[in-house]
Parts: sequence; structure tokens; C-alpha cells
Amino acid sequence: MAYKVAVVMGSDSDWLTMEQCVLLLREWGIDCDVEIMSAHRTPGRVHEFARQAAENGYGVIIAAAGLAAALAGSIAAATTLPVIGVPVASGPLQGIDALLSTVQMPPGVPVATMGIGPMGARNAACLAAQILGLSDPRVAEKLRVYKKEQVASVEAKNKVLRERLSGE
Amino acid sequence: MAYKVAVVMGSDSDWLTMEQCVLLLREWGIDCDVEIMSAHRTPGRVHEFARQAAENGYGVIIAAAGLAAALAGSIAAATTLPVIGVPVASGPLQGIDALLSTVQMPPGVPVATMGIGPMGARNAACLAAQILGLSDPRVAEKLRVYKKEQVASVEAKNKVLRERLSGE
Amino acid sequence: MAYKVAVVMGSDSDWLTMEQCVLLLREWGIDCDVEIMSAHRTPGRVHEFARQAAENGYGVIIAAAGLAAALAGSIAAATTLPVIGVPVASGPLQGIDALLSTVQMPPGVPVATMGIGPMGARNAACLAAQILGLSDPRVAEKLRVYKKEQVASVEAKNKVLRERLSGE
Amino acid sequence: MAYKVAVVMGSDSDWLTMEQCVLLLREWGIDCDVEIMSAHRTPGRVHEFARQAAENGYGVIIAAAGLAAALAGSIAAATTLPVIGVPVASGPLQGIDALLSTVQMPPGVPVATMGIGPMGARNAACLAAQILGLSDPRVAEKLRVYKKEQVASVEAKNKVLRERLSGE
Amino acid sequence: MAYKVAVVMGSDSDWLTMEQCVLLLREWGIDCDVEIMSAHRTPGRVHEFARQAAENGYGVIIAAAGLAAALAGSIAAATTLPVIGVPVASGPLQGIDALLSTVQMPPGVPVATMGIGPMGARNAACLAAQILGLSDPRVAEKLRVYKKEQVASVEAKNKVLRERLSGE
Amino acid sequence: MAYKVAVVMGSDSDWLTMEQCVLLLREWGIDCDVEIMSAHRTPGRVHEFARQAAENGYGVIIAAAGLAAALAGSIAAATTLPVIGVPVASGPLQGIDALLSTVQMPPGVPVATMGIGPMGARNAACLAAQILGLSDPRVAEKLRVYKKEQVASVEAKNKVLRERLSGE
Amino acid sequence: MAYKVAVVMGSDSDWLTMEQCVLLLREWGIDCDVEIMSAHRTPGRVHEFARQAAENGYGVIIAAAGLAAALAGSIAAATTLPVIGVPVASGPLQGIDALLSTVQMPPGVPVATMGIGPMGARNAACLAAQILGLSDPRVAEKLRVYKKEQVASVEAKNKVLRERLSGE
Amino acid sequence: MAYKVAVVMGSDSDWLTMEQCVLLLREWGIDCDVEIMSAHRTPGRVHEFARQAAENGYGVIIAAAGLAAALAGSIAAATTLPVIGVPVASGPLQGIDALLSTVQMPPGVPVATMGIGPMGARNAACLAAQILGLSDPRVAEKLRVYKKEQVASVEAKNKVLRERLSGE
Repeated sequence: MAYKVAVVMGSDSDWLTMEQCVLLLREWGIDCDVEIMSAHRTPGRVHEFARQAAENGYGVIIAAAGLAAALAGSIAAATTLPVIGVPVASGPLQGIDALLSTVQMPPGVPVATMGIGPMGARNAACLAAQILGLSDPRVAEKLRVYKKEQVASVEAKNKVLRERLSGE
Repeated sequence: MAYKVAVVMGSDSDWLTMEQCVLLLREWGIDCDVEIMSAHRTPGRVHEFARQAAENGYGVIIAAAGLAAALAGSIAAATTLPVIGVPVASGPLQGIDALLSTVQMPPGVPVATMGIGPMGARNAACLAAQILGLSDPRVAEKLRVYKKEQVASVEAKNKVLRERLSGE
Repeated sequence: MAYKVAVVMGSDSDWLTMEQCVLLLREWGIDCDVEIMSAHRTPGRVHEFARQAAENGYGVIIAAAGLAAALAGSIAAATTLPVIGVPVASGPLQGIDALLSTVQMPPGVPVATMGIGPMGARNAACLAAQILGLSDPRVAEKLRVYKKEQVASVEAKNKVLRERLSGE
Repeated sequence: MAYKVAVVMGSDSDWLTMEQCVLLLREWGIDCDVEIMSAHRTPGRVHEFARQAAENGYGVIIAAAGLAAALAGSIAAATTLPVIGVPVASGPLQGIDALLSTVQMPPGVPVATMGIGPMGARNAACLAAQILGLSDPRVAEKLRVYKKEQVASVEAKNKVLRERLSGE
Repeated sequence: MAYKVAVVMGSDSDWLTMEQCVLLLREWGIDCDVEIMSAHRTPGRVHEFARQAAENGYGVIIAAAGLAAALAGSIAAATTLPVIGVPVASGPLQGIDALLSTVQMPPGVPVATMGIGPMGARNAACLAAQILGLSDPRVAEKLRVYKKEQVASVEAKNKVLRERLSGE
Repeated sequence: MAYKVAVVMGSDSDWLTMEQCVLLLREWGIDCDVEIMSAHRTPGRVHEFARQAAENGYGVIIAAAGLAAALAGSIAAATTLPVIGVPVASGPLQGIDALLSTVQMPPGVPVATMGIGPMGARNAACLAAQILGLSDPRVAEKLRVYKKEQVASVEAKNKVLRERLSGE
Repeated sequence: MAYKVAVVMGSDSDWLTMEQCVLLLREWGIDCDVEIMSAHRTPGRVHEFARQAAENGYGVIIAAAGLAAALAGSIAAATTLPVIGVPVASGPLQGIDALLSTVQMPPGVPVATMGIGPMGARNAACLAAQILGLSDPRVAEKLRVYKKEQVASVEAKNKVLRERLSGE
Repeated sequence: MAYKVAVVMGSDSDWLTMEQCVLLLREWGIDCDVEIMSAHRTPGRVHEFARQAAENGYGVIIAAAGLAAALAGSIAAATTLPVIGVPVASGPLQGIDALLSTVQMPPGVPVATMGIGPMGARNAACLAAQILGLSDPRVAEKLRVYKKEQVASVEAKNKVLRERLSGE
């Protein structure tokens, strides 16, 4: 049976950042669960969730948090599944605090860190698919199509701009 | 009975930073326990320690960690005792990662953050003593003496420098 | 008699940041006084206030300031009470100047530094309550309730989001 | 047949950073190839390598580079395999340039970014193993053992420190 | 025959930043082509474009990109023409990521880096003209006129301000 | 009678940074007093010193401090004499903390901030002389000579380098 | 005869930042001239202005510029009058570029650097008055009054806030 | 006749950084002059040099400076030749001050900025050659050879490493 992906976030305000992530996963036919849990407010839930993630059928966990973003690291501490971290740009420091809190993990407890904010959220979906694609040819195929669409999209935008410029 | 202080750190390499903290606490007659535990490697121990800290007689917890320093925050998540965080300057970013990971806590879960490195470690002892001094007049008296010694020390250094300069 | 908390700030524009701090303290039944005083404009008042804070019944002092934020440090220089610093995000550097000016204190003069801006202000109230809770069981009890409400709030938000997603 | 891991780096001076990564992969019985290639000096080789990586049996690619670190991103541009990036701390900016150049990828082209320097290199091995462990139970088992050893190592260090302190 | 200038950008959203660059080049009678291509989405096109740029009549290539801005470097990797990089201020870090990703190139692969955003875009046009002006006296003359206009413009603004102030 | 200059510093370790400042002042015949005083350890002395500085014959005060450098600002708070601040590069952040703590003063309380470390210390002497030179022609003349010597020194170094290169 | 103050700025858009500076100087009866000149666009004018500033009756020069702010340093290079620099917060980096470009001057060429933006502009007026006040008792008296008004203003704001809070 | 390149630097201590630049230019048969001149100490010389650079036969000017690095910008202000800036990593901020002071130029006055330190110095030589190569086929040919050597060097290092690893 195919792995599921868990998308967890520290606060409901992070949903604005993570919605695109969930939409992409669904578009690619990847089963995913979404849950709000907080390393600092519901640490017991985070620990329990992470410990049972493998036996609950998850293959990858995506965790988004801002500020002193400890969520991804807390999950990585209690599982050997790959954990993807999305630093959210909340607060006055624009996410540089969340980036450093997510990426600078000690040896043995990696968090696969994405860029700050919504672009990182979409990349989290993409990386999760790449990981699952190693054992699921259907997902791998979706990614190849997606990559071709990216090429086509850049080429289309290029054509529009060049036509506009030559028409001036 | 007087409260104890717990001094915990994420790695034995943090002892270099924290030794002065423990020496100061002992000098002031404050009972303290030292323990290595890691938010990312022994999260279960951290959680259990924090949950039982109050009933085990601790009044203040001092936590030191470097990099994506989650130790102080993980403890603060599971206790309502005051938690003091010391960012350790390990790694290429010189502790700015540890500072932001320690201080930028979400509402409801404060970490009393000190400066980076050994000076922060000494201040952690001092703040712990200030907190305990509110209910322990002996500790409060030690701090008043310590503060006077600081004044005297600055004045003595001033005298030495001025004599050297006037003697040139 | 229970300790009072002083909430001081460098400018009346800091009130926007600190209002939540005062509301929380009052909600928990902690007596607090609010005062505007400036390390750079009314240094004499700051010094006098800090020197007399203990005998005036204060147990904790919360100080908020922006830019080259010297207020918390100036107070810490003249008292052995615990001082909590809130860096305010005023000016073009978004509070990173205030954070470093507040946290990087020399040994012997700690400032318990909170995160930048309103979230730091709320945490200052919380830390003050944690400190007072060591000798005031009523306050300690309020904090335990508050922590449970945080858990409940995260779980409620989680439920709302999951229902919305499953209903799509 | 099991996937191989490719460990590529921009310069032979990066070997100091990456040696631990390769040792860990071998320790866990993961077949890996090491190659020096540069996004800026041998871009053709990088592109060709990335395009053929999947059919050449690789499941994960680890790329390490310093400064304007483009290697991981260049590879991610030409494959749908998961790519792990290790920012190397070369040059006066201590790797913050390499971190931002590695992590801030546009949507659709993720790089799973690790912390700066040798600790990031070890975590790259660990994440690669976590990814491969999803389809290779032997690797998954190695990781579970490794995680237990981490716990034991922290506990052992704790015991040593506490004995030393109690013996003083 | 005179060299052409290529103005390439990673995304159509960069056109807002680069429009002034193209207008200046045209104003100075410099033939220029505009194209959208992405180091991370259409790397093959970037590589092919750069390899053939010299024989296609280009003398200078201007490349604009944001985030982990690899476009200018990717082009510089595959040509010995001078390449000018414009860091675009997209995303939460305001272009400091793009600046470091553009400027910190390894030895042998220079990118002539401009300031962040629209002012950098205008300077890219100016530097391209300065380079072409070495072998094209008409362009050199345009630049001398432009420089005189800058002086006149500052002097005119000065006159307006001084008159306003003296008239108050 | 000519004004004196006061050179104050927060710690005797700052003398390494400030010695050149005092040597320059003496070389130019400017009477100066040196004193160690600390905004955080001897705040009463700082306040008293600053309040009486004008009547004690000082025309300019130079203050050097590291970390959360509050010394220059504390003095500026209690005098209307010009105060020059020298950020000292102590601690892991290399003086960027001291720079921001010194320069970001609120309106009405300026600190004339110099560069970080020994070069800032020498410039502090130079600025003090420039200020005193407005009312003391002897000092103004010394500065004109010093400026000529700077020109001569650059020209001499240029000659040495060019001879070495042409002789190769 | 009393010294005049020159207020120069790199662009007319800097007037928004500097207007308060000029208003304060006039309020204190200090004669000042305002001029737009640019280190990068009208360098000849800057050099000539600085060389003749002393004989033209200026005692202090205030220079405001943004980005790679070279104006204050260029003036300081050609005069021995005290030069005050105001970093303007233009462009995406919010003035941190202008701050470093203004303050990090080589030995022998000081720029008395103020905080970023309008608060720095007001402090530039204040520092200029402090410098001129050393030889002009009328200006010194104005500053003493201004300082008292600051105290009164803080106390008045304090009273308003306290009444509002006690009336709630 | 072929253009010459000028390599200027603000201090003789910058020679350590720039020596490789000059060696590369000579290796490629490009005539170059080296001169120490300082935007802040010998501004007249800088201005005069820049104004006459074109008629003195220079085609490109390379300027290296540290701290508030104004040299490249000062030269760019007075010529329409292309100016290449090399930020030198002197002082506690490791060249980030020099980078921002060099790159953030206002519109109309570009400085082609290289990376910080010796790698930037070598790239300055390379960019100068690329610019001159547009009108000098001999230089263009040297660069093509140099680029091939880079490829060969990476491949050779790759071979050495792989042999070492396979021989273990």
C-alpha cells in the first residue's frame, strides 16, 4: 500500500502558507492528512504523533512553523522517517529566525529544509513526491509531467513577453 | 525547603560554556543538579524531566544549547517553572542561530534568554539567583554583596589603569 | 504580601506592544503598575525607580524599548530583582537592534530577554507570573490552567481545520 | 535492486566536509559513488550527470558546495530524484552565502537543505538513509539502531559528567 | 558590426525590475534581445543560449533573478563573454539572498554584480554600455552625455530645493 | 582655558582598543583623562560623571564599550556635551551588537558613532580634535598637518609598491 | 561670528528624512544652508564644497545619503571640520547598507554617524548644536532647555497613560 | 593599440588580496598598472586619476578596498570606463561592509562588483579580460584556454579523489 504524507503546522495561521502544499499533493494523487500541533503548546501530541507516524502509514512528514520553529526538529527527534521543514515568515524577522531554527540541526537528526514561506511549502510537496516516487512509479510519472509543464510555462511566458516587446 | 536549580545542556561540549554558571550557583549556596539531555536525541528524557521538575524540587531550569537550540523551548513547553536559555556559540554562525532559536518563542511559552556563550552562562546563574532571592533572603543578600563587589572591581581596575597612565 | 510587577516602557508608542502584557497580568490577578520612563531621556527617574523597586514592593520588572534599547539594562544595573526585557520592533531594522541591545548584557547584570514585539510582551507577563508563582500558589495555579487552555485552543483549531478540509 | 547514493561536491577542498557523510553511508551498507563536479566549471558534466542519474541507479543525490552554491540546485533542475544540499562554510561569510544559495529555491525545484558544514554532511547521509529506508527495510533497521545509539551516547556522556561533578 | 546585448530573466515577474534596463539600452541605440529563461526550470535552454551567445552576436549578457539566483552564474559558466547579474528583491529576505547567490562566484567565473532591484537594473544597462563603448565611440559618446545630464539633474534639483527653502 | 577630553571605557579589556586613541590625543597636545566606568556595573558613577562633565572642564567625551554597549548612550543622556561612541568588537558577534547599541539612539540624545574596534578608537581621537579645533587654532593646525601626512603616507606606500613591482 | 551648519544630501528624495533636521537647527537659531550634491553624480562639487567649507564659515557639515552612502565620507576626506553622517533608509536593505557605508571609515577620516533615517536626522541637528554650543553659550543654553523639555514630555506622556489606565 | 588595465587599491595591506589579480592579468598578456590611492586619504589623486583614465589608455579599472569601501564608486563617479570593485575582508565584519559599500551604487554609476577577498580579486582579472576580449581576439583566446583548463583541473581532481577512494 502507498505511503501517506502528513502535513503538520504549528498554528492555524500557517494554513495560508501551507494550502498550496496540500493542493499539490492531492493533485498528484498522494494521500495526505493535515493536522495542527505545536512543539511548544502540545508537545505530548507532537511526540506521540511522530513516534507512531511510521506504523500509521506515513512515509514523509512535512512540518511548517515560524519564529523559533521547533516543530520539524521535534518530529525528527522521534522518528526515522524523512521530515521536511518549511520555515514560515511570521514576525518581524521575516522568517530568517525560522530558517535557522529549522535547518541548523545537530548530526543524526536531519530536517530537509525548504525555502521560507509559500514557495517552500510548494517545494515541500514536490520533495515529498520525489521521495515517494522512488517506490511509486505513478508519482514519479506525475513529477516528470510537472517538470515538463514548468518548461512549457517558462517558454510560454517568454513568448508572451517577446511578442509584447516586438509589438511595441 | 529551598528550591534547587537544574542546569541542563544539549551536549557535553557545552560544559565549557556552562561551568562558570555552576560555579557561581554553588558559590551562592544554591543547590543545583547538572544533566546532559538533548531535545533532538533524548526528547523523551527532556519531556519527562520538564514535567516532573516542579515536584522534584526545582524552582528554576537553566538550559544551554547551540545551533537550532530547541532545549530551553522544549522544557518550557512542559513546565510552568521559569526556564532560562543560554545560546551556545557552536558552529560557523557564532551563536546567532542559537540566539534566535532560543528567544523567538511563541506567546505563552517564554524562555528567559541570556547573551551568547560564557557571559550568558554566568548571567543565567545570576538571574536564577535573583528569582530564588525573592523567596530566600539569604540568596538575595548574596546578590547584594556580589553587586557591590562588581562596583569595587570596576573601581579597582580604574585605579590600576589611571596609576599606570599617570606613571608613564 | 504578594509582590507587584512593574511594566515600564521607553515611550508611549510602546503601549501598542505592551497592552497585552498588562491585560494578561491583570487577568491572572497580579497587581501591576505601568510607567513611561526613558533610559536616555529621564535617566535619573530610571535609576531612582530601579534602586527603590524592591522596597516599593515589586518582585519583577518588565521593561520594553526599541532601537538602542537600554531601558531594561539600566534598570538591571541598579537592582537585584529579576528584570525582563521586551525588544520593540520600532525603526527600519525591525527590532534586531533592540534584541541585541537587550540580550547581550555583560556578566553579573542579566536581562531575561523575550522575543521581539507583541509576542514577547505576552511572554513577559507569562514569565513574570512563573517567577511569582514560585512563592504564590494562586498564580502557579492560574498558569497551569492557562497552559491547559493553550492545549485546548490548538486542539480546537486543529478540529476546525480538519472538518473544513474533510468537508471540501 | 537497491538504489545507490551519489555524493558530489564542487571542489576537492569540500572533501574535508563530506568525508563523514561517505563514511556513514558505507557504515550503513549503502552503495555510494563520489564525484567532483562544478556547476560553474563543468556545467555540462553536472547537467549530464543529473539527467542520467535515475537510469544510472541513483535514488538520492547529495551535493555539497560553498559560496554562491549552485551545485545542488543545478542538479535538482535536471532530475526528479530527491536532491540533498550541504552548504559548505568556505570564504569570509562562514557559509551563510552557501546556505541561502542552496535553500531559497523557486517552486518546483526543491533542494533538501542541511545545516552548514560537517554536521550538515552527516545529516545528509542520515536523510539519504531515511529516504532509502522507506523501500529498504535493512536500511530502516540500521537507522533505528543508530537512533538508539544516540540516546545511549547522550546518557553515557551525562553519566560521565555527573560522576565527575559529584566526585569533586 | 556592433555587439548586441541580451537581457535574460528567470521569471516574467522580473520584468517589473528589468523594464528600465531595456528602455535605457534602447535609448542609447544598443540593440538588445529580451528572453525569459530559468536556471532551475529550463537549464538546457540556459546552457545552449550561453554557449552560443558569442557566435549569435552578443557582446554582453545581463541576467536578473531572485532568491537562490543562479541564472547569471549558470550563464557565466558556459561563456567567456562578460555577464552582468542583477539580484531581484523577491521573497521575504528582500534580495540579500539573491545578492549573495549572484556575487559570491568561485574564481574563474565572474559575474559583474549590480545593486539589488530596479536601481541595479538601470546600472546593468549602464555597465553594458560602458563595456560596449570601449569599441563603439557612438555608445561612449552617449554615456558622456548621460553623465552630464546626471550632473545637470542634481544641480536642477538643488536649485528647486534651495528656492523653496529661501522662499519659506 | 582649553577643553579637556574624557576617554571612558566599560572594562579594562577595552584598553587594548582605546590606547591608540589616547596616544593620538596626547600627540596633538590635547589634555585627556582616562577612566573605567560601566553603565551596567557602576551606573551611579557614570551618571554623576556625565552630569558634572561640563563644569569639570571637558569639551568632548569618548566612550568605548562592547556587547549591549550602553555606556556612550548613558553619558549622552546626562549631558549636552558631544559624546563620541566607539563600539568594541568583544564577544561572538564581532561588534555588530555594540555598533547597533551605540548608534541607534532615540531623537534628542545623539552619540557620534565611530567604526568598530581600534580604527574607530583612532577616529574618535580625530573627531574630538576636529570639534575642539573649531575653537582652538592650535589643534586645527595639528589636524591639517596630520591630513597632509596621511596623503604623504599613501603616496610613499604607493611608491614602494610600484618600485617593487617594476623591479620584479 | 558664529559658525554656520551645512546640511547636504545626495538626492532630493532625502529631504523627507532631513526636513526635521533643518527645522531643529532653525528653531535653535543656528544658521544653516541646505544643498543637494552627490558623491557619485557631482563629485567635483562635493570635493570643492568640502575643501572650502571652513573658509566659507561652516563649523559642522551634516551629510545624508542612502545605499552605498559615500557622501559623508567624501566630504570628510577633504576637510578637517567635523562631519556628521545620516544613513537614509532607501532601497530594500532598509538602510543597513547606508549605515555600514557611513560608519566604517578608515583611521584619520571620521564620520560622526547617527542612527538610520529621520531619528538620525534629528540627532544630527542635536549633535551639531552640541558641537557649536562649546563656543556659543546661546546654543548651549537652548540645548539645556531642550533636554528639560524632553524630560517634561516623557513625564507628561507618563501621566496621560497612567490616568487612562487608572480610569479604566 | 590595446587597452591597459589599472589595478588600484586603498591601502598597501590590500596587496595580499590583489596580487593574484595582477599575476593573472600578466599571464594573459594584459598590460596593467598598479597604484595605491585612497578615496578617503588622497581623494584628489583618485578624482584626477579617474578623469584621465580613458585618455591615459586604460580600458578597465579594478579597484579594491575594505570597510566603507568608497574607492570603486569614487572612480566610477568620474569616468565612463567600466569599473570593477573588489570588496576586501578587512576588519571585524569580514567584508560584508565592503560588499554593500561597493555594490549598492545609485543608478547611473555602476560598479561591477566581485565576491569578497582573493577569489573576487581573481575574478576581477577574469572579468577585465572578458571585457577586453570583446575587441582583442588574443585575450579572448586566452580565456577560452583558461576555461578549458578549469574543466581539466576539476576532472583531474575528481580522478585523484576517486582513485584514492577506490583504493581504500
